[in-house]
Amino acid sequence: MATRMKILRTIADLYAWRSAQKEAHRPIALVPTMGALHEGHLSLIRRAKQEADAILVSIFVNPIQFGPKEDLDKYPRDFEGDCKKAESAGASAVFAPTPEEMYPEGFQTHVSVGPLSECLCGKSRPTHFGGVCTVVLKLFLASGCDIALFGQKDYQQYQVITRMVKDLHVPVKLISCPIVREADGLALSSRNTYLTADARKAALSLPRALDAVADAWSKGERNLKVLLQPVGDAIAKAGGRLDYAEIRTAEGLKEFGEKADCDAVLAAAAVFDGVRLIDNRLLRF
Amino acid sequence: MATRMKILRTIADLYAWRSAQKEAHRPIALVPTMGALHEGHLSLIRRAKQEADAILVSIFVNPIQFGPKEDLDKYPRDFEGDCKKAESAGASAVFAPTPEEMYPEGFQTHVSVGPLSECLCGKSRPTHFGGVCTVVLKLFLASGCDIALFGQKDYQQYQVITRMVKDLHVPVKLISCPIVREADGLALSSRNTYLTADARKAALSLPRALDAVADAWSKGERNLKVLLQPVGDAIAKAGGRLDYAEIRTAEGLKEFGEKADCDAVLAAAAVFDGVRLIDNRLLRF
Repeated sequence: MATRMKILRTIADLYAWRSAQKEAHRPIALVPTMGALHEGHLSLIRRAKQEADAILVSIFVNPIQFGPKEDLDKYPRDFEGDCKKAESAGASAVFAPTPEEMYPEGFQTHVSVGPLSECLCGKSRPTHFGGVCTVVLKLFLASGCDIALFGQKDYQQYQVITRMVKDLHVPVKLISCPIVREADGLALSSRNTYLTADARKAALSLPRALDAVADAWSKGERNLKVLLQPVGDAIAKAGGRLDYAEIRTAEGLKEFGEKADCDAVLAAAAVFDGVRLIDNRLLRF
Repeated sequence: MATRMKILRTIADLYAWRSAQKEAHRPIALVPTMGALHEGHLSLIRRAKQEADAILVSIFVNPIQFGPKEDLDKYPRDFEGDCKKAESAGASAVFAPTPEEMYPEGFQTHVSVGPLSECLCGKSRPTHFGGVCTVVLKLFLASGCDIALFGQKDYQQYQVITRMVKDLHVPVKLISCPIVREADGLALSSRNTYLTADARKAALSLPRALDAVADAWSKGERNLKVLLQPVGDAIAKAGGRLDYAEIRTAEGLKEFGEKADCDAVLAAAAVFDGVRLIDNRLLRF
């Protein structure tokens, strides 16, 4: 019979759990989440089980990665539902600290990654990736995880964390897992629950516009202007507003000149009825 | 017969050495230095030998902790002499990377600690402690050290690193070791080699002024103004220029009101003929 999933609330709880895993020589895989778990998260947990024995899911809506006008307060929370989903997907433990546990009085350390954090989503969310790096490094070091899994949907986040891990010699192996989508193509996101029925329809223009670009790419088009030009119009026509759509190098998110000349990522963010969504496609050269 | 001290030049060398120690279950103690080793550094190495089996001394003049007008280029370097001293004090290995090895192309991660880095030395060296935190965290994580030793002379640095380690859950135990002084009281510093004979004489006014404050404190004086007022004059009279002299809480470097009311640190920096020196005294309440 499988042991029941543990609920860890404090760093001390986490250390105790971690010690037990280390003593039993059970490699630890971490799946960091902000809760409101959907199939995307669950796919990470299932994949984690192929990679390690002890699967830790962190559930923490990290205040320092939200900007002052963003959706921290209304971010969806469903702790009991999340625990059931995490356990059924195979989690060994959930770490769900309070903000005070993660950022107690006197806390004042900040980790940031430079240019990689300033482009794409970083332009409209200038403090976002610093908050992500800080909490992720805390989770890595506090959990003592050997492996950590992230979804490809947050492509820039994965690039930023990969850079941080490399630059600081953090002893954690990173794994990126494919985007999970609704049947009609919309990428799963906890923020999809914000969408009205109309906005949900409009939001479909985002993956469809990216599909169109990927299609043109697959037919050999490499000119960035030609590839990207239709995206904004398609989203506007559906009633959304494009924040950005860019094609950059898949590794390192470097800008191309006029034409792409290696593996690339097409990344975009758009707003539908006040809800900001992101999506991306890998474009193999 | 003791094994000869290893010289590690690359992160890959360091990982290999680290793995060998871990396999042999030898705890690792790290003594991070910028070279130009003196008795202060050697006292850390000797103390490290009481705490761990494998003693790693890093020698790296870290460019990112120097300001644009500071002494990076002329900082004293004597690698062969340093290795002899480190070995005779008991080091198992020296890690001496190039700047390119520590900060290769694309490196862009930065670790900083807030208010603790902005006071005292942080006022005249605004980027210093961020550079220190970044390199120290790299050294901690790359070496996999269990313990790290620092001199009390860099008191603020120790407080900043203590904060970083706590905030990020870095699994390293920190040890602070007493200041080592010349017979006449001047704190040992690699920068003392910059002093002309006249400046060397003048520099003595720094520890002597701090002695006078500590003496008044030991007699019961707790009023900060009264305690600190003579310091600037004494140093000016000797021909130096006081950068700052402050009394703050020993833990956390918090400011007092008019009077000190718990264990404190008296920290000061002064410039003698262009050479900036620091010193401090713990004041037990």
